[in-house]
Amino acid sequence: MKNTQFADLFARLREKHPLVHHITNYVTVNDCANITLAVGAAPVMADAHEEVCEMVTFAGALVLNIGTLNSGQIESMILAGGMANDKKIPVILDPVGAGATRFRTDSSLRLLNELEIAVLKGNAGEIGVLAGAEAQVRGVDSFGMSGDPVKIARNFAREAGITIVVSGATDIVTDGKRILLVDNGHPMMGSISGTGCMAASVTGAFAAVSDDPVIASATAMAVFGIAGEKAAAGARGPYSFKVALFDIMAGLAPEDLASCARIRVK
Amino acid sequence: MKNTQFADLFARLREKHPLVHHITNYVTVNDCANITLAVGAAPVMADAHEEVCEMVTFAGALVLNIGTLNSGQIESMILAGGMANDKKIPVILDPVGAGATRFRTDSSLRLLNELEIAVLKGNAGEIGVLAGAEAQVRGVDSFGMSGDPVKIARNFAREAGITIVVSGATDIVTDGKRILLVDNGHPMMGSISGTGCMAASVTGAFAAVSDDPVIASATAMAVFGIAGEKAAAGARGPYSFKVALFDIMAGLAPEDLASCARIRVK
Amino acid sequence: MKNTQFADLFARLREKHPLVHHITNYVTVNDCANITLAVGAAPVMADAHEEVCEMVTFAGALVLNIGTLNSGQIESMILAGGMANDKKIPVILDPVGAGATRFRTDSSLRLLNELEIAVLKGNAGEIGVLAGAEAQVRGVDSFGMSGDPVKIARNFAREAGITIVVSGATDIVTDGKRILLVDNGHPMMGSISGTGCMAASVTGAFAAVSDDPVIASATAMAVFGIAGEKAAAGARGPYSFKVALFDIMAGLAPEDLASCARIRVK
Repeated sequence: MKNTQFADLFARLREKHPLVHHITNYVTVNDCANITLAVGAAPVMADAHEEVCEMVTFAGALVLNIGTLNSGQIESMILAGGMANDKKIPVILDPVGAGATRFRTDSSLRLLNELEIAVLKGNAGEIGVLAGAEAQVRGVDSFGMSGDPVKIARNFAREAGITIVVSGATDIVTDGKRILLVDNGHPMMGSISGTGCMAASVTGAFAAVSDDPVIASATAMAVFGIAGEKAAAGARGPYSFKVALFDIMAGLAPEDLASCARIRVK
Repeated sequence: MKNTQFADLFARLREKHPLVHHITNYVTVNDCANITLAVGAAPVMADAHEEVCEMVTFAGALVLNIGTLNSGQIESMILAGGMANDKKIPVILDPVGAGATRFRTDSSLRLLNELEIAVLKGNAGEIGVLAGAEAQVRGVDSFGMSGDPVKIARNFAREAGITIVVSGATDIVTDGKRILLVDNGHPMMGSISGTGCMAASVTGAFAAVSDDPVIASATAMAVFGIAGEKAAAGARGPYSFKVALFDIMAGLAPEDLASCARIRVK
Repeated sequence: MKNTQFADLFARLREKHPLVHHITNYVTVNDCANITLAVGAAPVMADAHEEVCEMVTFAGALVLNIGTLNSGQIESMILAGGMANDKKIPVILDPVGAGATRFRTDSSLRLLNELEIAVLKGNAGEIGVLAGAEAQVRGVDSFGMSGDPVKIARNFAREAGITIVVSGATDIVTDGKRILLVDNGHPMMGSISGTGCMAASVTGAFAAVSDDPVIASATAMAVFGIAGEKAAAGARGPYSFKVALFDIMAGLAPEDLASCARIRVK
């Protein structure tokens, strides 16, 4: 693929500075806010029943992350997601820990059933579980899925009518027809808490300025992966890596994406 | 104004190390805790109905921040704020996102009506909305207010009988009679999440050791702004700026305030 | 004591990479997640009634921290703790702010009464209050206990049949029979929010791979203290200290523990 279209989308994000409404966990929420700012969007976190429908109407995207879910929060997600669907605002779902407990699996499936999800982004274990494949999740960590993750993701995306991102050393992005593979990223991204959540936030930022969830998701994974690669270069450990990740993300230019993105069509 | 009175107040804060009780959002709460420590006070975060009234009695100030409000938390704020009022403990209100949703506007107005607020600190959009001016807030970001913010803030402060801080490139501090303008600060403070919340925490720390909310607020905005200026000097991006912001805040001495504060009477 | 046994336990932790289930506060939760990763374990934070019993069955340890407790969260702790007890999974309790409010004291005592706690870790004020000694806590800060903390901790540990860690310049670790003193650590650890909470997370990580809570706790306090000592060396202030603390923790090797641990038998 020509990297210029991804670079153009990045330039558009920086210009539009869209609002990204998050209903997310309290573990990595600060990282999600800061990465949203660094990539060029504006974060807002709001989960009260009284306000989520109003808040989301001003957003370019809604990011739902079940990292520390509870029943009241799931209701907020249903409310905000329904309004987002009415307003054609793309909804990103990060089913953190789906497969680790029945509550996480069931809540993810409920959100998938009751809402029109634009992008479902998870690790191999989470996506595998939701796709009905044999897969294993312990806590919030993937222990992988049996079978070919590309095929499983593609079939699941086709059936559900959504775009799926399977994060990993190579990220898989598919809407059931197209399959894009993103090779950007660095193992140090697994040394800190929150990179998965941040990837969903970045995906929300790009989805807010694009009509094509596949292109938006692949761009997001490439941009975030490039920031990770560059941040790892000078890091002395996980937290100096984290500091550099935000610094570099904020300083990345569309040209960097044009030259460094490793996105290929499968 | 002579900067020595601000420097003296800073020295007093460092000596007294007051407890600052926060009922605040889960996005920037860690930053609020760390900036409270860095400026020289002791943070405690507690929001359970069962304990807020007891906790606040040991505090030098109470900081209320509605960044991720919900109805239960507002009740805790009313409870803790009522006890703080009884004990003459100053209450700082940061109406994060007032104007973005009716729930945030109404909750802010309720807190202003039911409690004696010592200092109301917000951006131009938030203060404008609460003052009844034409103003716009998207998410938690100000899109400014129509009219002269100094006049609007002064009149609102006079009517409400409170001190108001309008944060911005030049911060406005007024109790309806006196107007102080603080020119300290740096644009990089807008590149990370939480600087507005942190400013409220710092204001709480100074209000805890002062009888004059105008002087306390201006000192807080100047100290925090100076830390921001110095932190921006060597920053490679938003997160190394953030790291330096805490480092420099902890290392600031009253003499730095005496020499660097840019506070003027309007 | 020979430091090799502590080093061996550290090697074992790095090899086993156990899951540490946290039910904890929203102030320092991100730090707890990252320190758990840095020491070599896998964190998961989950507190919904619907899932805590299922989640904890996959964990090597359960860490309960009441830093921002509420009644629903205490119920989750009782549920998860009961299941952990059934499965012989060690439970660590950090009674943050016990003594500051009745709600914190009573909740701590309830958890101690209704659950089998493996390790109770607190500062001198918190442990003193729970032991029934004269002690004082303001917010989440210890103002010390009257009497000999070693004797008070030892007697309380013996009566309660648990291991107690009293954190301080010298950490006290005792199960009522054995008493270990750990001299590692650095005053800068008090300059940031969350080091107490992180110490509990690290204790959970070691408890997950050990049958001996005394050895596990002393190893945890030594490892964390060594990381603090080394991080303080190059720090320019509290937040660069924090960055280095995680970096160094992740890079610490069992050999470092063998050479740097200062653990003595009382």
